[in-house]
Amino acid sequence: MNKSITLVKRPVGMPTLNDFLIVENKIPTIRDGEILIKTTYLSVDPFMRGKMRDRESYTPPYQLNKPIDCSGIGEVIESKNSNFQVGDVVSAVMSWSEYNVGTDLTVRKLNHELPYTTAQGILGMTGRTAYFGLLYKGQPKEGETIVISGAAGAVGSVVGQIAKLKGFRVVGICGSDEKGQYLINELGFDAVVNYKTENIRKALKHHCPNGIDIYFDNVGGDITDQVVSLINFGARIVICGAISEYNSAEVSVGPRLFPTLLNKSASAHGFIVNDFDQLRSEADNQLREWVLQGKIKSKETIIEGFENTVPAFLSLFEGGNVGKLLVKVN
Amino acid sequence: MNKSITLVKRPVGMPTLNDFLIVENKIPTIRDGEILIKTTYLSVDPFMRGKMRDRESYTPPYQLNKPIDCSGIGEVIESKNSNFQVGDVVSAVMSWSEYNVGTDLTVRKLNHELPYTTAQGILGMTGRTAYFGLLYKGQPKEGETIVISGAAGAVGSVVGQIAKLKGFRVVGICGSDEKGQYLINELGFDAVVNYKTENIRKALKHHCPNGIDIYFDNVGGDITDQVVSLINFGARIVICGAISEYNSAEVSVGPRLFPTLLNKSASAHGFIVNDFDQLRSEADNQLREWVLQGKIKSKETIIEGFENTVPAFLSLFEGGNVGKLLVKVN
Repeated sequence: MNKSITLVKRPVGMPTLNDFLIVENKIPTIRDGEILIKTTYLSVDPFMRGKMRDRESYTPPYQLNKPIDCSGIGEVIESKNSNFQVGDVVSAVMSWSEYNVGTDLTVRKLNHELPYTTAQGILGMTGRTAYFGLLYKGQPKEGETIVISGAAGAVGSVVGQIAKLKGFRVVGICGSDEKGQYLINELGFDAVVNYKTENIRKALKHHCPNGIDIYFDNVGGDITDQVVSLINFGARIVICGAISEYNSAEVSVGPRLFPTLLNKSASAHGFIVNDFDQLRSEADNQLREWVLQGKIKSKETIIEGFENTVPAFLSLFEGGNVGKLLVKVN
Repeated sequence: MNKSITLVKRPVGMPTLNDFLIVENKIPTIRDGEILIKTTYLSVDPFMRGKMRDRESYTPPYQLNKPIDCSGIGEVIESKNSNFQVGDVVSAVMSWSEYNVGTDLTVRKLNHELPYTTAQGILGMTGRTAYFGLLYKGQPKEGETIVISGAAGAVGSVVGQIAKLKGFRVVGICGSDEKGQYLINELGFDAVVNYKTENIRKALKHHCPNGIDIYFDNVGGDITDQVVSLINFGARIVICGAISEYNSAEVSVGPRLFPTLLNKSASAHGFIVNDFDQLRSEADNQLREWVLQGKIKSKETIIEGFENTVPAFLSLFEGGNVGKLLVKVN
């Protein structure tokens, strides 16, 4: 039998276990051109929260009582596609299920060059998001200072490393001193701010003596309000995520930021990694090279057990992970 | 004697007549390289409100008890500069004074090709702001729909005309039916919304059947919140002004807009016309050509009398003007 996790209720506010259900169905039968994949790792991502709402967005919402779409890694256990053989390890569009069906369009074969999990992290959507967001939307210039919120998260930790490689001053905002130490000692950040224990504005003023030229935003809300109040003339804000807002049942209210953008001749760029699909190989090749050269570290938090997929997803909103969060299914 | 208007108190909220004082001093004496200018027109602009606050901005604040800096048009009545002769009409950086001193750096000689007042409107900072904001920050693409707030104002009325020349669908938001009729009948706007009498969202949905690709914002606040809620995927927001905010004594609060920018992969660009100083002649030449060809109309509201300068300035915040507002001094 094939266990899958379905959405049974659209969450209002923070999702709970009761919004999801583990169901069992027969293992799917494949047709010509298809492969059957046994899941080994499932990806859990903050953006998935948005798809749990029944509203217009850049991707359609999840359907109720259907397995939740995501991506993951698995092993081919049956193949009716000559491009894939039993035993191949693949990165694939899949659902939160133990078994998934793949095709040429949804599956990419992995080699042994780097750990398979990197395909869902630094060498997957996570890495590309960091790469395109920082370099294309942020348009960094020599000597600039960049502040990253959600700095210890999947995307933030890559953004900081790329920014250091490019020679910028990098200040990360995160939610624990352990994360902060990791960012400084392991990933080479110049400074960190613990938003739970420090005065964000005061700390940022201290750590950014030349002001803030780029703000790479993964969290939104009050942290963003405070960072934006300190941006330099001509600053660029890359709006990559707003995890503090995803569970708001009502429209979030805060100080209006457009007057600051005006006064500072600054810009704010929402972006979605799919906007850069045509440039995908550029990011993939560069990130692979950096990882192989040891210039960028791939960091993952792994939670064991298919039945822990929903708790893993929920932990994203409590800052439980460092780097990319994955569920190991077997 | 030379009358000047000084700022005697930094306004809190909407400025009042008591924040200003008309003072009399001797007509200034000029030195080598200088000219003495008798003012004929003074410019009053919304951005001047920002300089009445004692806070960091892209230009320094006005000093208390000093004549208020602006720009204007005047006649040379004495010259110790071989580039200018008595009788020349000039556009100049000047203060709210009946007489001003100019130099090569602050003065530009005008010819009779077009009415002198255009030098402070369509062929001055106003026109350049519209030109660069729409074409460089807005990055319009064929067939797009543009919404303009403050559409009947100095900048908005030019933005709409340029957008029509370039073939876009242009919808203006303004505060009276008279202004709306003017925008449609005289300037060729496709549709208008009277924000005082109509439901903005409903009206915009009706007038923008293909959604909103560019929002050229002169007003900020609640109108902007409503327009932003309707933007298309990939939309660009040009933040040119925020007149609804300029008199706020406290930080204005509203729905957070960054999550919408993220969800729509949209961007918001604060900008200041000085950012484009190096491209100035491009805009000046193109706008002059369009005006001479009758493709763009120059519209001004003229208030008579130096003593009415402050009331004219205050009227900006009540939407009194159509097009560029100028004070005729003599």
